[in-house]
Amino acid sequence: MTADRPTPLSGFPELLPAERFVELRVLDSLRASFELHGFAPVETRAAEPLEQLLRKGEIDKEVYLLRRLQAGKDEPAESGEGSADGQASQASTLGLHFDLTVPFARYVLENAGKLDFPFRRYQIQKVWRGERPQEGRYREFTQADIDVVARDVLPFHHDVEIARVMAEALSALPVPALTLQVNNRKLIEGFFGGIGAPDVPAVMRVIDKIDKVPAEIIASMLVSEAGLDARQAELCLALAEIRAADSSFVARVQALGVSDDLLAEGLAELSAVIDGCAGLNSDRFSVEADLRIARGLDYYTGTVFETRMAGFESLGSICSGGRYDSLASDGRTSYPGVGISLGVTRMLLPLFNRKKLTASRSVPSAVLVALPDEDSRAISDAIAGQLRANGVATEVSPGAQRYGKQIRYAERRGIPFVWFPAGPDTPHEVKDIRTGAQELADPVTWRPPAEDLRPQVVRSQA
Amino acid sequence: MTADRPTPLSGFPELLPAERFVELRVLDSLRASFELHGFAPVETRAAEPLEQLLRKGEIDKEVYLLRRLQAGKDEPAESGEGSADGQASQASTLGLHFDLTVPFARYVLENAGKLDFPFRRYQIQKVWRGERPQEGRYREFTQADIDVVARDVLPFHHDVEIARVMAEALSALPVPALTLQVNNRKLIEGFFGGIGAPDVPAVMRVIDKIDKVPAEIIASMLVSEAGLDARQAELCLALAEIRAADSSFVARVQALGVSDDLLAEGLAELSAVIDGCAGLNSDRFSVEADLRIARGLDYYTGTVFETRMAGFESLGSICSGGRYDSLASDGRTSYPGVGISLGVTRMLLPLFNRKKLTASRSVPSAVLVALPDEDSRAISDAIAGQLRANGVATEVSPGAQRYGKQIRYAERRGIPFVWFPAGPDTPHEVKDIRTGAQELADPVTWRPPAEDLRPQVVRSQA
Repeated sequence: MTADRPTPLSGFPELLPAERFVELRVLDSLRASFELHGFAPVETRAAEPLEQLLRKGEIDKEVYLLRRLQAGKDEPAESGEGSADGQASQASTLGLHFDLTVPFARYVLENAGKLDFPFRRYQIQKVWRGERPQEGRYREFTQADIDVVARDVLPFHHDVEIARVMAEALSALPVPALTLQVNNRKLIEGFFGGIGAPDVPAVMRVIDKIDKVPAEIIASMLVSEAGLDARQAELCLALAEIRAADSSFVARVQALGVSDDLLAEGLAELSAVIDGCAGLNSDRFSVEADLRIARGLDYYTGTVFETRMAGFESLGSICSGGRYDSLASDGRTSYPGVGISLGVTRMLLPLFNRKKLTASRSVPSAVLVALPDEDSRAISDAIAGQLRANGVATEVSPGAQRYGKQIRYAERRGIPFVWFPAGPDTPHEVKDIRTGAQELADPVTWRPPAEDLRPQVVRSQA
Repeated sequence: MTADRPTPLSGFPELLPAERFVELRVLDSLRASFELHGFAPVETRAAEPLEQLLRKGEIDKEVYLLRRLQAGKDEPAESGEGSADGQASQASTLGLHFDLTVPFARYVLENAGKLDFPFRRYQIQKVWRGERPQEGRYREFTQADIDVVARDVLPFHHDVEIARVMAEALSALPVPALTLQVNNRKLIEGFFGGIGAPDVPAVMRVIDKIDKVPAEIIASMLVSEAGLDARQAELCLALAEIRAADSSFVARVQALGVSDDLLAEGLAELSAVIDGCAGLNSDRFSVEADLRIARGLDYYTGTVFETRMAGFESLGSICSGGRYDSLASDGRTSYPGVGISLGVTRMLLPLFNRKKLTASRSVPSAVLVALPDEDSRAISDAIAGQLRANGVATEVSPGAQRYGKQIRYAERRGIPFVWFPAGPDTPHEVKDIRTGAQELADPVTWRPPAEDLRPQVVRSQA
């Protein structure tokens, strides 16, 4: 606690090694799920020209600009300079990306000639936003995105695919129960149009507040801000109350007596997504049609997604996305897309902070090879090498203290096994320091039980 | 080629998916090697207070500062604000880290009470430097670092450990032949002192230029800049010429007739590192004592490392490090460390650019399930699900064109197998589209040959 001890930076969370093991296990699991479905890995640079970042508007407060410490006075912020081939390009200020969609859209345009469409990619990276930090909101955090993007036309079945891939990925994670909530913009816009709403976007903006504002207030806002009459407002609220884990929502919407072509198209699409995810529901994961989901400020045109984590509803949605008619466009060609983005840090940090999730040990090592004396280090090193050749993470005791002290070294780190090298008259022995069980063993063939091979994710239900 | 097509940013390289597969394979391999030796994963935030970044000095030109786009006028750059618990901390400008050593030193101090020492960690992350870009020098690039850090005292055997772990990690990579060059500061400082050099650091600074400047010039610089006489300069050059893959260098140094205690200590340490790596040398990887390695500007105090890649010597060292007597200090406690840092981007990008390295395909998919007609999509999806359950990355054809066109879709992406679903009168068949061989298969049990399961790294010797 000296003055020289650095303190954390608010909004820039860091993990201890045991937590980082859990995060890596989650990222590995996501990557495996995405690759199993044919999604290719993409990573984009952290910096984009500012005008690229602000194209979507509305988020300009959040961008971090870059400036070189020694930049000239005529160069107030960092610029993209001439490209490597010597051509001068227009200098522009650089900022850190605040999501992975904007850089991916730019990547698709930049590499369109080298990519095959439809193009499936996953992207797992840090993003930065200069927001005021709070639980679930960070200035630096990791997202995991999947998107399918096509040239000109992207068939609807990719909406079902995206839902299913993320549903499979989420259901494999060691976290509290998740609900993937699906809705469709065509459905709600068609419904609002079908009841005769004079300003459909205004209705959507009000409905988007439904999780934060009581229903009576929403009803009166629909009248005062969206120009509906009381009966229309009531219908909108009735629609927003519908949720179902199967296609039964269709009949409930139809029972409201509103008829509209766009509504019918939206109902068919949403049914297809829900049916396509049938069979994935369990006590730890479910996919539901939830007709209150609007994602008001984003430019979605069909399917929309949000995700809630049980017990952590106040975080809001931890995994969101939907269908864009134009993810990217170069003025001649349009690239429609559908995608979904998981807030990995937003999901995991509250679990770490409340001790809901950790790892069984703070080091990869399954075995500590003890050291009889410092002169025997080469022998202990050789044993460690034999164990590693079998894929067993192993370290050698840092010092040749008495064995009790070496065992406590392993204990503090959670290393389950201590190996005692053979002596002139004694064979190799390995001790499970949790149970005290000690047995003869051959370093060339011995392996720990599978569950001890790597640090395990430990969930606390408390 | 429209005006709207974005162009690359010089110094911020991005990869196509096939190249990213190779990079991920390299990162996975490094991580596996490091964990096998008990190194725990750490990731630090991208931003550090500027005064933290400039503590080592000399690199201030390279730092990228952060500023929020909407920051107030009294807030010229981004500041660390009050911590989450409401305590105000001194506001300071933030910059992006330019290496992983400075943030790791800060992390060790910040978390000293929660870490067990000696603490082994690996860290694989992006770093940023505002340097003028050229081959092997980027503004954004990935490093992979390992360090062992202790409290107060770090025994020498950890120098041998670090050399050995990185040597094993490097020798597993699919790259041209690498040479890990090791030297020892005590050895060369002791030698320079032993010959009576009046200004040992000045000798080191000159010797550090030995790869870029002809020997005659080095000799005259040693006289003019480091105050040596001709005989002393000759001895320094003779020392710098010594290199060996075994301990034979000791006799060659002793034959120069210089006697010094520090020199003797350095010789013993360097021998121990070289002996400790014996058995790792092959035609693709070697560890050598190279007595010209000085790493002039860094604060190393014993072992020093550099690494050259055959055919790419102009890149300089791609993997460097050494022993610090004080990696970090909080004023009361000192944390000595030894570590080494691999420039992953510096190593891989020149290989990608010269087409020396790529992947066997641009998608993870080993199988494309064909689509007889759009109404059969659920059937093809179910087959894909069965294949995925066996760990076989699979995608379903995006459209129900005639089979020839679907096969070409697979061909363009490098997907080796196309699956033809059973019809009313026909069984399931799978075709290897490279050979044309087609066979009956059961989606519940079929697996491709192991080498086709995932994209393979392909090395070109051309």
